[in-house]
Amino acid sequence: MDAEDARRRFAAARVARLATVGTDGAPHLVPLVFACDGDTVYSAVDHKRKRTTNLRRLANLRHEPRCTLLVDHYDEDWSRLWWVRADGTAVVLDAPPADHPGTSLLVARYPAYRERAPSGPLLVVTVRRWSGWLASPGDGAA
Amino acid sequence: MDAEDARRRFAAARVARLATVGTDGAPHLVPLVFACDGDTVYSAVDHKRKRTTNLRRLANLRHEPRCTLLVDHYDEDWSRLWWVRADGTAVVLDAPPADHPGTSLLVARYPAYRERAPSGPLLVVTVRRWSGWLASPGDGAA
Repeated sequence: MDAEDARRRFAAARVARLATVGTDGAPHLVPLVFACDGDTVYSAVDHKRKRTTNLRRLANLRHEPRCTLLVDHYDEDWSRLWWVRADGTAVVLDAPPADHPGTSLLVARYPAYRERAPSGPLLVVTVRRWSGWLASPGDGAA
Repeated sequence: MDAEDARRRFAAARVARLATVGTDGAPHLVPLVFACDGDTVYSAVDHKRKRTTNLRRLANLRHEPRCTLLVDHYDEDWSRLWWVRADGTAVVLDAPPADHPGTSLLVARYPAYRERAPSGPLLVVTVRRWSGWLASPGDGAA
């Protein structure tokens, strides 16, 4: 899968997973909703609706900005499996303006955000590398 | 979500994501199929069918055995979102016997493995902590 195909598949997905590294060196993992603009991925954290433990991603990224995002497709017919990974670095905007382009993209993308726009910190990931994997026909269960 | 509910939801999922930490300190992320037995999670890597880059998870785990697995459920109605995380430590068995219990569980669980049993390294993760998150009704888009 080339980088352009990887980026296209990633941008079309509704959910991704974010891996970060903690201050103790252990990996951390959460699902997130997101919006893409080229090589930039935006995601919001509504801190008023999350428990403290869910904000660990932010503390981790302030300490180690390198992160990885994954979108994957599962099917019992393994010849249809694919995944895309985006390796990048993140910046956390603690109090983004309400009209930040990332927030606007998120609101445009998710009906739930149209009812209640994200108001917490904004995660801005600059993707340095898009990679992916597509099953070949011989990998199939069918 | 209590640990028992988290474990039950995780064990029922068809795909999870594995986060590891590379020798360079950056996070790494891949999807995987798996089978659970209590607090043990098994996953196989068929090295004959993967490119070298896909084996990075094994090199990472030999260097840093701490890892995290995630199962998540997405729905446009955000009151139905949930995820489960399993934090643990991994051991890589390079040449597991064909009748290893982990391999047997994987074969029993996935039709694709019944046609071609996994023959590569086996990942054995001992989960130290099950945690999870369930949306509350007020989180919904609907």
